[in-house]
Amino acid sequence: MRYVIDFDDAAADLEERIGARARALRRITALGIPVPPGCAVTDVACRRFLETGDLPDEAWHQVVDGAQGILSAVAAIDPGHPTTFAVRASPPVDMPGLVDSVFDLGWTVEVHDASTRWATPRFAAETRRRFAEGYAAVVRAVPVERIEAVRGRDDATTAELEEAAGAIEALIVAETQRPVPPDPLEQLREGIESVFASWDGMPARRFRRANGISDDVGTGVVVHAMVHGAADDDSGAGVAFSRDPVDGAPAPVGCYRPRAPHNLVAADRTNLGADSGLPPELRERLEDALRTLEADQRDAVRVDYVREKGTLWIVDGRAADRSSPAATRIAVDLVDEGALETDEALLRVEADGLAELLHARIAPGAAPEPITVGTAASPGAATGIAVFDSASSLRRAADGTAVILVRRETTPEDLSAVVAAAGILTSHGGRTSHAAVAARGLGTPAVTGATSAHVDAQAGEMRIGTATVQQGDMLTIDGATGSVYLGPVETLPPADGGHLERLLRWADEVRRLRVLANVDTPAGAEVARKAGAEGIGLARTEYMFSGERLSVVRRMLLADDERDRATSLETLEAMQTDDFVRLLEAMDGMPVVVRLLDPPLHEFLPGRVEVEQQLAAARRNGQPTEDLERLEAAVDTWEESNPMLGLRGVRLAVVIPQIYRVQVLAALEAVRRRLDAGGDPRLQLMIPLVASLDELELVRDMIEEEVHFAGRQLEVGIGTMIELPRAALIAERIALESDFFSFGTNDLTQTTLGLSRDDAEEAFLGEYLAQGILTDNPFQTIDRAGVGRLIRTAIEEGRAANPELEIGVCGEHGGDPRSIAFFHEIGVDYISCSPPRIPVARLAAAQAAVVTAS
Amino acid sequence: MRYVIDFDDAAADLEERIGARARALRRITALGIPVPPGCAVTDVACRRFLETGDLPDEAWHQVVDGAQGILSAVAAIDPGHPTTFAVRASPPVDMPGLVDSVFDLGWTVEVHDASTRWATPRFAAETRRRFAEGYAAVVRAVPVERIEAVRGRDDATTAELEEAAGAIEALIVAETQRPVPPDPLEQLREGIESVFASWDGMPARRFRRANGISDDVGTGVVVHAMVHGAADDDSGAGVAFSRDPVDGAPAPVGCYRPRAPHNLVAADRTNLGADSGLPPELRERLEDALRTLEADQRDAVRVDYVREKGTLWIVDGRAADRSSPAATRIAVDLVDEGALETDEALLRVEADGLAELLHARIAPGAAPEPITVGTAASPGAATGIAVFDSASSLRRAADGTAVILVRRETTPEDLSAVVAAAGILTSHGGRTSHAAVAARGLGTPAVTGATSAHVDAQAGEMRIGTATVQQGDMLTIDGATGSVYLGPVETLPPADGGHLERLLRWADEVRRLRVLANVDTPAGAEVARKAGAEGIGLARTEYMFSGERLSVVRRMLLADDERDRATSLETLEAMQTDDFVRLLEAMDGMPVVVRLLDPPLHEFLPGRVEVEQQLAAARRNGQPTEDLERLEAAVDTWEESNPMLGLRGVRLAVVIPQIYRVQVLAALEAVRRRLDAGGDPRLQLMIPLVASLDELELVRDMIEEEVHFAGRQLEVGIGTMIELPRAALIAERIALESDFFSFGTNDLTQTTLGLSRDDAEEAFLGEYLAQGILTDNPFQTIDRAGVGRLIRTAIEEGRAANPELEIGVCGEHGGDPRSIAFFHEIGVDYISCSPPRIPVARLAAAQAAVVTAS
Repeated sequence: MRYVIDFDDAAADLEERIGARARALRRITALGIPVPPGCAVTDVACRRFLETGDLPDEAWHQVVDGAQGILSAVAAIDPGHPTTFAVRASPPVDMPGLVDSVFDLGWTVEVHDASTRWATPRFAAETRRRFAEGYAAVVRAVPVERIEAVRGRDDATTAELEEAAGAIEALIVAETQRPVPPDPLEQLREGIESVFASWDGMPARRFRRANGISDDVGTGVVVHAMVHGAADDDSGAGVAFSRDPVDGAPAPVGCYRPRAPHNLVAADRTNLGADSGLPPELRERLEDALRTLEADQRDAVRVDYVREKGTLWIVDGRAADRSSPAATRIAVDLVDEGALETDEALLRVEADGLAELLHARIAPGAAPEPITVGTAASPGAATGIAVFDSASSLRRAADGTAVILVRRETTPEDLSAVVAAAGILTSHGGRTSHAAVAARGLGTPAVTGATSAHVDAQAGEMRIGTATVQQGDMLTIDGATGSVYLGPVETLPPADGGHLERLLRWADEVRRLRVLANVDTPAGAEVARKAGAEGIGLARTEYMFSGERLSVVRRMLLADDERDRATSLETLEAMQTDDFVRLLEAMDGMPVVVRLLDPPLHEFLPGRVEVEQQLAAARRNGQPTEDLERLEAAVDTWEESNPMLGLRGVRLAVVIPQIYRVQVLAALEAVRRRLDAGGDPRLQLMIPLVASLDELELVRDMIEEEVHFAGRQLEVGIGTMIELPRAALIAERIALESDFFSFGTNDLTQTTLGLSRDDAEEAFLGEYLAQGILTDNPFQTIDRAGVGRLIRTAIEEGRAANPELEIGVCGEHGGDPRSIAFFHEIGVDYISCSPPRIPVARLAAAQAAVVTAS
Repeated sequence: MRYVIDFDDAAADLEERIGARARALRRITALGIPVPPGCAVTDVACRRFLETGDLPDEAWHQVVDGAQGILSAVAAIDPGHPTTFAVRASPPVDMPGLVDSVFDLGWTVEVHDASTRWATPRFAAETRRRFAEGYAAVVRAVPVERIEAVRGRDDATTAELEEAAGAIEALIVAETQRPVPPDPLEQLREGIESVFASWDGMPARRFRRANGISDDVGTGVVVHAMVHGAADDDSGAGVAFSRDPVDGAPAPVGCYRPRAPHNLVAADRTNLGADSGLPPELRERLEDALRTLEADQRDAVRVDYVREKGTLWIVDGRAADRSSPAATRIAVDLVDEGALETDEALLRVEADGLAELLHARIAPGAAPEPITVGTAASPGAATGIAVFDSASSLRRAADGTAVILVRRETTPEDLSAVVAAAGILTSHGGRTSHAAVAARGLGTPAVTGATSAHVDAQAGEMRIGTATVQQGDMLTIDGATGSVYLGPVETLPPADGGHLERLLRWADEVRRLRVLANVDTPAGAEVARKAGAEGIGLARTEYMFSGERLSVVRRMLLADDERDRATSLETLEAMQTDDFVRLLEAMDGMPVVVRLLDPPLHEFLPGRVEVEQQLAAARRNGQPTEDLERLEAAVDTWEESNPMLGLRGVRLAVVIPQIYRVQVLAALEAVRRRLDAGGDPRLQLMIPLVASLDELELVRDMIEEEVHFAGRQLEVGIGTMIELPRAALIAERIALESDFFSFGTNDLTQTTLGLSRDDAEEAFLGEYLAQGILTDNPFQTIDRAGVGRLIRTAIEEGRAANPELEIGVCGEHGGDPRSIAFFHEIGVDYISCSPPRIPVARLAAAQAAVVTAS
C-alpha cells in the first residue's frame, strides 16, 4: 500500500487522501514555483495510527524513504545546508484544534554544527531553542507556562540561548521521562504522530461535530525541508496576497520581514513596496508566483514565503481569506477578467457577510474600548445623542437630530419613536425582542440586551459600572457586533454598491426562490424594496394596534357591552385601512402578505405588577378605582401560564371574531381605495397558528363573505401559516382550502422542539451549544431532521392535494443561507426575511440554484 | 326503484337502507310478536328529498300504497278502528336533533267521528288536540310557547278540548299561512318530509360531525298504524325491560299506565307487578315477547308497548340502555346462560363506565342539592370532616377520622396530607392540577376547581355564597360528578366485584396491550395492583422532592458553592433511595418505570408574589433579608415566560447534571437493597423531554457509568419519553439507544397542537367544542390525524431501527377507550394510566383486540 508521495511525483492516485495543504504544495510545485523538497503522508496512515496506536511499518519505511529523498534533494541544491524537517497537518478542510505544524525536526548535534558553519553560531543557537520549545510544547505537551519559565529572554545572547535550549531539553525529560530522541528520524516520527493524535483530541472532534464532518477520516501530513528566513541579511520571510484581502483591489499586497523565521511572521498587507527590504527582482518573482497561482486557481491567493540566502521559497499557498467587500469585488473582477463564469463567482462570496454591506460600519481600527456589549440585534453602525423616552426621541428626531433611543426594553407604545431613531439600544431582550424585530424590519441599527447597563428613564440616564450616560450625550452603537461606544466613532459609509449590485443581479438571474421581506410599515417597505425585495412576505398587523392606538384596543378589550366594543372596533378599522393603503402603495404591483392578528391579547394590556401598583396607589390616595379594577380583571382574564401555546392567532377568531372581521374589512377597503387610485394592489391575507381545517374554513368563510359583500371583484389570496406540527401533518387537508402556505419557522421550531426561544436562549441553549449537544442554534439554522422533515412532508402532501399551492417561508430562517439551501432543495417558492438579510437571501438562493444545477 | 317495504314483507334487499328502528320493527314482526301494521321508507327517498326539495313521485306512490295496505290490514282486524298514522324517524344510529315522531297523521272530520263512535267523544277530542299540537310544533315548527298559550288546561272538558284544538288549527294558519291539509295523505306526506328535513338541521349535523357520521346518508322513516292506549279502561301503555337496567338483575321490570297514550309514558322500572293494573295474562304475553326478543337479540331489551282495548301491541323494541353495573352483570349472565361468547360479552360493556365501579357512589336519589359543583377530578364519593390545612389533616387522619382536605389548591408541600385524606376539594385548578393528579394516582376521590367556593385557610373556613363551612363540619364530595354536599350523604359501596372481576378476567385473556399504572407512591402502587395493574408505567419522581423535603431541594437550588449543593444532594439521595425501595417492594416482580425529574425548577420555589411580600414585610420589620434576597434571585433565575417549553426534563441534566446523577444513584442503590432482601426489582429509568440523540446519550452514559461503578450486575432498562414532535420525527435514531419508548401523549398533544392544556381548557377549548371546530377534547381522546400520525411513524421507524424496542404510552390517553383502540391498532405494547382507569383500560384493550380479530 502506498502511504507517501513526493511533491514532485506526477502520479495523482493519492490526491484524495493527502489533504488540502499537501495538494496545494504539489500543485505549486507542478506550476514550476519553487517549493522546498517534500512529500505527503496519507490520512490512511493516520487512521491506522489512531486504530492501533502505531504507524504501520510499511508507512514508516515509506516516510523514511521520503525523508532521505528530501535530504538528497536539498544536498543537490546546497551541499552545506543543515537540513531539518517541517511536519505540518494537511486535513481535508481547515480544522481548528489540530496540531498545525512542528518545525526543525531532525535537530542533532551534527545539524547544530552544520548550522553554525552554514550560517552563524547565533543562528544555530536560536534555531535550537526554537526547536526545543516546539518539541516540548507540541510533541510532548509540556505545559506552556513551564516552558516560558526556562526559555529566557527574546534578546538573549548566544550563550544564553544555548543554555535556555538545554534547560528546555531537561524540562522535557523531567516532564515526560524521555529525552528528545537523538535519532533525527525518531524526531520526525514523533512529530508526525503528534499531528495524527490531535485528530482525536476534543477540540478537533467538537469542530467536526459542529460542521458535520465524519470522525472516521483522518488528516494527511506534509513533510518538507526547513528553509530559513533568519540565516543572514539576504534572508527573511513574509506573506503576500494576489489582491487586497480587505477591499479586494486588484493588486498584490503583503509584507516582508528581513531575518525572520517564516512561522513568526504575521499576515499583514502593510509593506511589500520598495522600502520593505525585499529586493525588486525577488518581488517580481513573488508577484509572478502570485499571478501564476491565481490564474491556476482562478481566485485570489495568499502565499507564505521564505527568502533563504537570497533564494525564494513558497512554503504555503491557498485561497486568501477576505472581507465581504473584498470577496464581492474579487468575484466580480474575476468575471470581468474572464477568469470566472458568473455562476462560479456567486459561489465565491459568503452570503452571510452581505448583511452588513448595506449599512454604515465602524472604520477598521477606529473603535475605542466599548462601554458595554449586548446582542447584535440589527446590523449597522449609528451615532447620535442618547434619549431615554419616546416623546423626547420624537421631538429631537423631528429637528433632524440623530437620536439613539435608549430603553430598558421597547413596547408597542414606543413604535413611532423606534421608527424615528437612528439607532436603538436596550438593556433587556434578545434577538427576538420587540426592539430587535422592529429595528430589523426598519433596517435601523440596534443593540439589545446590554445587561450591564442600568437604564433609568425617570432620571434620564444610563449607568454602566461607574460611568453614567446622560440624556443628550453622544453614543455610537454597532449593531453588527453589539458594541456600544461613548461619543462619536469614525464610520465607513455603506460599501460602494457597484460590485455588490452586479453580483446580486447575477444572483437574481439564476435563483429560483423569490425573495420577499418581513416588514410592517411603509418605511420598512421602502427599505426592503431598495434592497431588492419582491414584495412583502410577512406584514405583522400588531403594529397597527400599537402606540397611541393602544388605548382604543384596550377600550375594545374592556368593553362592557357589544355597542361599546363596536365603537372601538370602528375606530380601529378606520386606522387600519389607512395603514393598509400605505403598505399597498409602497409595494404597488408586488404581493403584500398580511398576517391577521397573532399575539396573545395580554400583550395589549399593561403588566400585572404595573396595574397592581397603580391600584394600590389609587386606593391610598382615595382616588376612584373602578377603571383600574376593570383593567385588573382583564389582566386576570387574559393572563396565561404558557402564552406561546395559548389564546392567539386564529384562536382569537374563534373567541372574539370581531377583531379579525375588522382587519378583513380594513384590508378590503384598502384594496378598493388603491384600485380607485389606479394602483395595482396585490393583497394576500394570511391566517396564523392554524391547527385544523375548521379554523381555516371559519376565517376563510368570513373573508369570502366580506369579499362577496364588498360587491365588487376584489382578488385576495388566502393562505395559511404552517407553524404548528399538526398543521404540517394535516397539510393535505389544509392545502385544499389554501392559496398558499407560509411556514412560520420560528414557531414551528419552538413547538417541534418544545423549546421556548426566549427562555432557551437565556437559560440553556448556550450550554447545549457549548457541550456540542446542539451543533447549531435551531432558531438560526433550520433543524433539518425535525422541523425540516415536517416542512418537506407538508410541501409534498400539500402540493399533491393542491398543485396550485404556493409555498413560502417567513420565519427568520428565510434569511439564513444554510436554511435557504434547504428551502431551495425541497421546493419552496419564496422566502421572506428582514430587510438587512435581503441581499444575503438573494445570494444564498442563487448559490443553492447553482449548486443544485451542477 | 323500491323506496318502501312493509313490516311483514320477507324480502331483505332494503334492510341496509331503512334504519335501525324499521329493522327492529320488521324483526319483531317476523318473530310473531304483534306490531301495528306498518311499512318503512328508505333513506334514498330522504336523500332525494333533501337534494330536490321533493319526494320522488315514485316514492310517494309507494308510500300511498303502503298507507292503503296499513288501512286495509287494520280494517281486517278491527273494522271500526279510526285509523291514523305514526311517522317516526329510523336513522342508521340514534341521532339527537332529528324529528323523532309525528303521531295521529291523517286526522280528519271522518276519523274524528269514527273515534267518537269507536271510543268516546272525549277520546276523540283529546286525540284531536294532541294531533293539532304535534302538527303545529313538529311539522310546521310553530314556536312551542305560542301553542302553549292556546292549548288550554290538561284537565279540560271535552268541549274545551275541541275548542283548544280549533284554536291550535287557527294558530297554524296564522303562523304558516297554510291550514292543516284536509287530505289525510297530504298530512302523511308533510309528516314524512318534516322528518327528512330534520336530517339537515344544525343539531343533527353537529351530532354527526362530532361522531364522524357522514352527512351524505339520510334517515329512513317508519309509518305504522296508531294504536291507542287511552281508548278505554282496557287500554294503557308502558315500557318494559327484559332485565333490570339499573343493577342488571335477570328478571323483567318496567311500568304500565292505564288509559295513557304510549308517547306520554316515561320509562321507569317501578311497577309491572300485580298492582300495576296490567292483567296477568297480558303481563305473561309481554314477558314472552321480552324473552323472545332477548333470545333473538342475545341482549337485554326494552320494549314500548300499547294495550288497546285489551290487545297488546309492541311499538318499539331495542337493546336496553343500562347503567355500568347492569351492563357488566347482564353481559356476564348472558355468557353463563350460554347466550353469548365471552368475546361478545366484552363488547357489550362500555369501558368508560368502569372507572366508577370500584369506588363508593352516591346512592341514587340520596343526594341533596349540592352546595357547589367543581371539576370531577378523581372518581368516587367520600364523606369526612372539612379540614383546611395539611397539619390538621394529618393529625385528624392519624386518629382514624375521615378527612376532606379543603384547599385553594394543593402544592407538593401538601402531599402527605393528600395521601392521608379520604377526599380532596379545591377551589382552583382543573383535571391536571396537582390535587387532581395526586388524587387519581392514589385512587382518592377529588373535586377541584369549585370556583364558587372561597377557601380561607387562615380563618379555617370555606364560604360559598352566604353559607360557611367551618373546620370540622361534615362534607361529602362526589368525584364522579364534581358535586359537593353539606353533611353526610348515603353512599353505595363499590360495586360487587364478582361480575366485574369475571369480565375483566376474560378481558385479560384476550387483550394484547399490557396495562400499567401511573402512580408515584407505595400507597398508589397498592391500589393499582389491586385494580389489576401489571406494573408501574410512570412513577413521577417529583413527589420525592415534595413536602418537608422541599426545604432541602431549595437549599440545593440556592447553594452558594458546590460543597453546599453536594450536602443537600446527599440528603436527597438518601431520602429517594428509601422511596425507590418501597416502590419496588410494592411492585415486586413487576416493571417499575421511573421518570427522572421533569418539572421546571421554579415549581420547587415559592411564587414571586409570596417572596416579594415576605421580603417587604422583613424590610418593614427590620429583619434580616439576606436569605429572602437569595430566594428572590433564584425565583428570578428560574422564572420562565413559557415554562412548558423551558428548562425541564432532560434539559436539567445538561444544565445541572447533579440532580439526575443523584436520582440514578438512589435508584440503583434501591435495586441493590431489594436484591439483598431477596426481592425481584424490575427498575426501568425513563428520560423525559428528549429532543435529540445527544441528550439521550448524555444521560444514558451517566446511568451506565453508575451501573458500571456499582460493581455488580444491575439490570436497568433505559428508555425515552417521546413527548416532543422532534423526538417522534427522529425516532429511528433515538431507538438505537433506547430499550423502550414511552409516549407522553399529554405533552406531545400540547406541542403538536401548540396548545397549553391549562390555558386552553380554561379559555377557549369549550368554545372550540361548542362550535364543532374540535369534535373531541384532544387531551382526552388522542388526535389521530396529528398526534396519532406522529406516534405511528415513530413506532414504525423506531422498530425498524431496533426490533427489540418496547413501546408504551403513559399520557392520560392511556386510560381512554377510543385512544386505547388506536394504540392497539398501531402496535403499542403497553398503556399506563391512573389507578381508577385501570379497569377501563383492561376492558378497552380487550375490546380493541376482539374488534381487530373479528
